[in-house]
Amino acid sequence: MSTPMDPEDWWETEIIDMSPGVIRYRGYPIEQLIGHIGFAEMVWLMLRGALPDKAEAELLETALMSAVDHGPQAPSIAIARMATTCGVGLNSAMASGLNALGDVHGGAGEQAVQLIYQITDRTNEGASIESAVSSTLAAFHETSGKYVPGFGHRFHPVDPRAPRLMEIVSNAIAAGTVNGRSKAIADEIGRQIEQAKGRHIPMNIDGATAVIYAELGFEPGLARGLFCLSRSVGLLAHAWEQTQQGGRNKGPIPRDRTWTYSGPPPRDVPGKTE
Amino acid sequence: MSTPMDPEDWWETEIIDMSPGVIRYRGYPIEQLIGHIGFAEMVWLMLRGALPDKAEAELLETALMSAVDHGPQAPSIAIARMATTCGVGLNSAMASGLNALGDVHGGAGEQAVQLIYQITDRTNEGASIESAVSSTLAAFHETSGKYVPGFGHRFHPVDPRAPRLMEIVSNAIAAGTVNGRSKAIADEIGRQIEQAKGRHIPMNIDGATAVIYAELGFEPGLARGLFCLSRSVGLLAHAWEQTQQGGRNKGPIPRDRTWTYSGPPPRDVPGKTE
Amino acid sequence: MSTPMDPEDWWETEIIDMSPGVIRYRGYPIEQLIGHIGFAEMVWLMLRGALPDKAEAELLETALMSAVDHGPQAPSIAIARMATTCGVGLNSAMASGLNALGDVHGGAGEQAVQLIYQITDRTNEGASIESAVSSTLAAFHETSGKYVPGFGHRFHPVDPRAPRLMEIVSNAIAAGTVNGRSKAIADEIGRQIEQAKGRHIPMNIDGATAVIYAELGFEPGLARGLFCLSRSVGLLAHAWEQTQQGGRNKGPIPRDRTWTYSGPPPRDVPGKTE
Amino acid sequence: MSTPMDPEDWWETEIIDMSPGVIRYRGYPIEQLIGHIGFAEMVWLMLRGALPDKAEAELLETALMSAVDHGPQAPSIAIARMATTCGVGLNSAMASGLNALGDVHGGAGEQAVQLIYQITDRTNEGASIESAVSSTLAAFHETSGKYVPGFGHRFHPVDPRAPRLMEIVSNAIAAGTVNGRSKAIADEIGRQIEQAKGRHIPMNIDGATAVIYAELGFEPGLARGLFCLSRSVGLLAHAWEQTQQGGRNKGPIPRDRTWTYSGPPPRDVPGKTE
Repeated sequence: MSTPMDPEDWWETEIIDMSPGVIRYRGYPIEQLIGHIGFAEMVWLMLRGALPDKAEAELLETALMSAVDHGPQAPSIAIARMATTCGVGLNSAMASGLNALGDVHGGAGEQAVQLIYQITDRTNEGASIESAVSSTLAAFHETSGKYVPGFGHRFHPVDPRAPRLMEIVSNAIAAGTVNGRSKAIADEIGRQIEQAKGRHIPMNIDGATAVIYAELGFEPGLARGLFCLSRSVGLLAHAWEQTQQGGRNKGPIPRDRTWTYSGPPPRDVPGKTE
Repeated sequence: MSTPMDPEDWWETEIIDMSPGVIRYRGYPIEQLIGHIGFAEMVWLMLRGALPDKAEAELLETALMSAVDHGPQAPSIAIARMATTCGVGLNSAMASGLNALGDVHGGAGEQAVQLIYQITDRTNEGASIESAVSSTLAAFHETSGKYVPGFGHRFHPVDPRAPRLMEIVSNAIAAGTVNGRSKAIADEIGRQIEQAKGRHIPMNIDGATAVIYAELGFEPGLARGLFCLSRSVGLLAHAWEQTQQGGRNKGPIPRDRTWTYSGPPPRDVPGKTE
Repeated sequence: MSTPMDPEDWWETEIIDMSPGVIRYRGYPIEQLIGHIGFAEMVWLMLRGALPDKAEAELLETALMSAVDHGPQAPSIAIARMATTCGVGLNSAMASGLNALGDVHGGAGEQAVQLIYQITDRTNEGASIESAVSSTLAAFHETSGKYVPGFGHRFHPVDPRAPRLMEIVSNAIAAGTVNGRSKAIADEIGRQIEQAKGRHIPMNIDGATAVIYAELGFEPGLARGLFCLSRSVGLLAHAWEQTQQGGRNKGPIPRDRTWTYSGPPPRDVPGKTE
Repeated sequence: MSTPMDPEDWWETEIIDMSPGVIRYRGYPIEQLIGHIGFAEMVWLMLRGALPDKAEAELLETALMSAVDHGPQAPSIAIARMATTCGVGLNSAMASGLNALGDVHGGAGEQAVQLIYQITDRTNEGASIESAVSSTLAAFHETSGKYVPGFGHRFHPVDPRAPRLMEIVSNAIAAGTVNGRSKAIADEIGRQIEQAKGRHIPMNIDGATAVIYAELGFEPGLARGLFCLSRSVGLLAHAWEQTQQGGRNKGPIPRDRTWTYSGPPPRDVPGKTE
């Protein structure tokens, strides 16, 4: 059993300080921040504890605005729309969709940043990018299967967001905003995948935003968190649109269509003569 | 029973159009939007169907960045932190907190925008602001109780965010970005509350952001949605910080302290002789 | 601002008392309850503060077991299945589905119990059942629209669960377990709906369980809660089955099918010459 | 891209078959099941595809009723209560709490069943129980840390639920309902933990229900699911009680108490002369 403590000891944070009439984030008074920094800078401050420079904030903002939506075919968006028609508020509809951004749906970006950082570590220990990528991918395939997070898309032959984001990263490298190591690693990953598969597997949105988050030094776990923040915009927009469209208890498929039943054939309950 | 339909008819949206290799939001190709518009503009485009001008986007962005967090005393933030220690991902921790931004916690902004719009309607029908506010408040108190949404705070004598936001709205009015009608209404509400109570009840963050959302023409329901988006930043930051702090199954109060039990005294189960 | 309090004052419950080595629900020691009462009795004890007799518990149990599932066409079940494929645990998949049992999806039973109790109140004030039903339905249609909660079904011409449940309620009335007033009211509601519409609109599962919950004296709000408990079984079964089936990011419709886009036609971002 | 499919192919289940007027679970018509089987049998049927015998169902029911609540000190219960005061429905309050039964909070039972099955596998390959337990625990400590799931409690010196449940399992073994292998394994785990630690670490509720689920042949993943079902009763009872108590935006600790702020000291925003 832990040592008895007061509530004041039980809850501790470096993020926010508050007393009556005073709110400070990371030490900065809120009334100085309002009107002075933008949304992306606030996200950075809350997550990292310091203010970014304008160019860093802009790159973060670009990643955040680029992944807001992929349509009602995505489970998260469909869930938010369906929940709306069941009579819950926008907050709960958004929450239900957000909740589904799990290891599979929302985790690819996190895994991609992890991969980039593992490779970075190996190059820091002296390996060439080429050999660091090669050995890390081999280890990844061993433990985590054949798909490399951040590459390939089940719907888009080329995900139109990725090349545009990479162009912007290149500009940021040229401007000295970031050093380009994560992008170089991602490029080499893409090259080795192509070599192994015999065809080009283009980078997807998770890969492209992972490069940005890695270039900006975000922890892998935050890549998922930032994706959640980004996709919340789409969740809100779709939940709101569904509210306007109306509908009650909207299920996944039209009401007259059911499903394939593949269980036991019709049978009587044993001992039930009725 | 509804007419049979195809899935393509069952799901309909004006937000996003997609085909292999193509993603368009509200008709605009994503690769043109990326690097060209910011996060707040994207939020506006997704929710309203058109791009705002830069000054409008900036005002929206200020509202979004100003309400990100109110500390682990708030149920939403505490829930996100506690959920993290129970072994769910960041997405689920954020969702649990977001889910709690219900009618009471997240609904004040929505109600405040509604109130402003009801008053606007009365002035549009010819009433003076003074009489429109007075009659609308009377009707509100009749149906919804004594607290006027957007005014007063249980913790802050003066909420430091509100006066700063009102200063920015004044600047936006002076610049012609918005017309100032919603702010004038809010000011008159404040004046009449003070008159009725015999003391000044200052505007709070919900009231201040409601003025901005109303000046920008957002539907009342979206005031809650935008608050959800804003507070998601705090949910993420706190869930992440708790992850770093560690802890397992962290409850609301220190582990050695329990609660007041006010039920029946100890008793035996009837028919249980043991 | 509220008076300062200790955590022990802040959290208060009549449900559970605990000290090291001791757990009592409503005063009864857990080790006496285990093996002595069943699940439905425990539900009753937790919600009502006293133990039911065996016949009451059996009736409650029948209501609970009768509403566990309505298939993946229901939004709640589809959500739980989809969430599973996004990489969250069973708890989060169940929670996402449960979250959708809102005012529309899960609220019909609550409304039906409310209606029955309103009618009961009028008969207690001296009205005949016939006139109490008639005046209450008229008031209901005025405020809440044309559908009477608990009657009619969008899919089943006759919901097979309702007549069987009513048969069991009749047996319970004959046995003196319940007094039959709520069933008499529900029967009269059905008669008056038929008269008004010119055709029989059969009772549905929400109506049938509402009769049981009302006969047993549960608060209307608990009708929704008990439905949530019941449907949790279906949520668990479907989430688990989907886990076994596998699949990644399973959306509402097959992957090759998209949706109807009804927004603006393709257009260039203004000021974007690219 | 997958092969085009119809919605009827996209959703498939062995659990429920439905056509207008007909609902069958696992082939059995719902109107035959109602009034004939109890809640625990329905749970079993939905999860396992067949009806249990009465003695098996009773054992499952005992496990389900024994873990319904551990008070508002538990994060899940506190979350449900707090959510209620934020203006969401009972369904959403329950969902928020349920969502928190993650790997840490709700996963211990799952891990305990896994452990029992791993040991069972080793004994099936010819190992003695003693050596199978010893080698499996050694491997477990290697990969998963020092705590053995199902043993020890942070609050109760002896969890009063566990010995009572083990007594009931012993009776079920004596009656031939289950074969006792899982209980024998759990007993041996307890013996070896005591030997290693030099003191008795008693079994907890997760361990005791894990023994029951393992004796009954449930998959490890379902141990978590069944715990979720069980704890839903407590979530409902507490959410409901909090609704009756009232309160608005109830946070974790009394309103006058805040938290320890451990971040940067008060500072001005750079470039902000105001």
